[in-house]
Amino acid sequence: MTGGYLLLVADLIGVAVFAASGASAGVAKRLDLFGVAFAGFTAALGGGIMRDVVIGAVPPLAFADWRYAVTAVAASVAVFWLHPALHRMRRVVLVLDAAGLGLFTVTGTLKALDAGVPAVGACLVGMLTAIGGGLARDLLTGEIPAVLQREIYAMAALLGAVLVAVLHRLSLTGLVPLTIAATLITGVRLLALYRRWSAPVAVP
Amino acid sequence: MTGGYLLLVADLIGVAVFAASGASAGVAKRLDLFGVAFAGFTAALGGGIMRDVVIGAVPPLAFADWRYAVTAVAASVAVFWLHPALHRMRRVVLVLDAAGLGLFTVTGTLKALDAGVPAVGACLVGMLTAIGGGLARDLLTGEIPAVLQREIYAMAALLGAVLVAVLHRLSLTGLVPLTIAATLITGVRLLALYRRWSAPVAVP
Amino acid sequence: MTGGYLLLVADLIGVAVFAASGASAGVAKRLDLFGVAFAGFTAALGGGIMRDVVIGAVPPLAFADWRYAVTAVAASVAVFWLHPALHRMRRVVLVLDAAGLGLFTVTGTLKALDAGVPAVGACLVGMLTAIGGGLARDLLTGEIPAVLQREIYAMAALLGAVLVAVLHRLSLTGLVPLTIAATLITGVRLLALYRRWSAPVAVP
Repeated sequence: MTGGYLLLVADLIGVAVFAASGASAGVAKRLDLFGVAFAGFTAALGGGIMRDVVIGAVPPLAFADWRYAVTAVAASVAVFWLHPALHRMRRVVLVLDAAGLGLFTVTGTLKALDAGVPAVGACLVGMLTAIGGGLARDLLTGEIPAVLQREIYAMAALLGAVLVAVLHRLSLTGLVPLTIAATLITGVRLLALYRRWSAPVAVP
Repeated sequence: MTGGYLLLVADLIGVAVFAASGASAGVAKRLDLFGVAFAGFTAALGGGIMRDVVIGAVPPLAFADWRYAVTAVAASVAVFWLHPALHRMRRVVLVLDAAGLGLFTVTGTLKALDAGVPAVGACLVGMLTAIGGGLARDLLTGEIPAVLQREIYAMAALLGAVLVAVLHRLSLTGLVPLTIAATLITGVRLLALYRRWSAPVAVP
Repeated sequence: MTGGYLLLVADLIGVAVFAASGASAGVAKRLDLFGVAFAGFTAALGGGIMRDVVIGAVPPLAFADWRYAVTAVAASVAVFWLHPALHRMRRVVLVLDAAGLGLFTVTGTLKALDAGVPAVGACLVGMLTAIGGGLARDLLTGEIPAVLQREIYAMAALLGAVLVAVLHRLSLTGLVPLTIAATLITGVRLLALYRRWSAPVAVP
């Protein structure tokens, strides 16, 4: 398996997991089958669409490569029928979600850097790639985005994006250093979940 | 009348009808005159703006051709003053809305295909052109988008977009086959309304 | 000080003030530190990002020039810690916000005209530059956008945008006429606040 093929497979697993999170939110809000698929598509591919629009890579990958849309819709339809099982697997889902966070941050930051976005902006774009889908999912289903309210989620992504920018500056963009960066993001996220770390809220 | 002129007139009628739906929602939420015009503009032109941004056709038609913005705002202001009459005409409005759905799907899908978006992506872009404005209208007015919750609306658009992609592959993109495609979408939508068809909702 | 440097400083002051408005909304909604910073970033830079995406100036300034993001985040974090003081200074904040409205409208309209957007579209883009951040802030925090509901805010921006388009047509785009246009928008906004002017709401 080549690196490119490996990356595609990893990317599609991330898409499926994020789609499942969107579809679950849609089921909980009593959306119909189309609504559940749309919420899943948005959660999985919304962040990548934002990234591609912002860096000028149009049409975005979500529309240019049919495998992304088909994966997102298939995962969403599966959740529509099988959501009680998903609830029982929620520990697995949280781990996969953390893996998706790490992966999307690394690929998003790298894509922005390669498109010529300066380092600070590229870190923001990388983080947005990872959290944008969840943001859009929450807005679609009438919720204040969870990522703004609690837990260490976006901060783990931002930290990892900075690491990717440093690695890029040092020309260390091979598979090994990038895998380490993604794993670090995933690890920080899981540790924060396990230890119930959360960001401070302002004193009223 | 040439085909181009005919298309422009049809397009502007679609814009006016979708603007009326947005303006009505704005009136119902007690928005002020500016808010009603903005909700109308968004409902009418939001889908086309998303389409143009995603396919890289900037500035979007909504900003490049003043007739679109002026039509949307004029229709919205008319609704602001005349909304009780609109309520009495709601059957006519539903028929015109279904016609707008058909037209926007066909032109959106075709524009995406002509911009080089592959078939699956172009179908999604075509559907988004038709439902995007309504989605944005509902988010602006604090509602979970209606298109995600009930009735056959987006599915009719998606079905029609697939037909357009097939016609495009067969080089059948003359006025007659495209009109048939738009009419089919409109017909499916109206039939679904009449027969009260709806998409399934997940078992809790 | 050159004109370009002066403009940058003015722009960053506008960014800081708009970020403070977003951060305040975030504190009021009990968002965590990241959420407050994100709401501030969105309020400050959301309008400019919409402008740049729509006119094809990618990556948007918010990602291309680190000073914008750093200013927005620094102002947001300051509000997170100091928000009671902000409440006491709310008259000052309203004046600065009106100044930001004037400035962002003028630079947004001009940027759109320079990018080749026709006059009507450029006025809409200019207005969107000024109100887009506030719109996005309200959507993020689960509110129907305030700008659609009450007071003369967007109308002042639109009026000023039309003036900028006229000045541009007359080739009067020096610092003096543009400063007059920005001051006019700010003045109309403050007068509307002082006199409690508001736009009409439809009769039910």
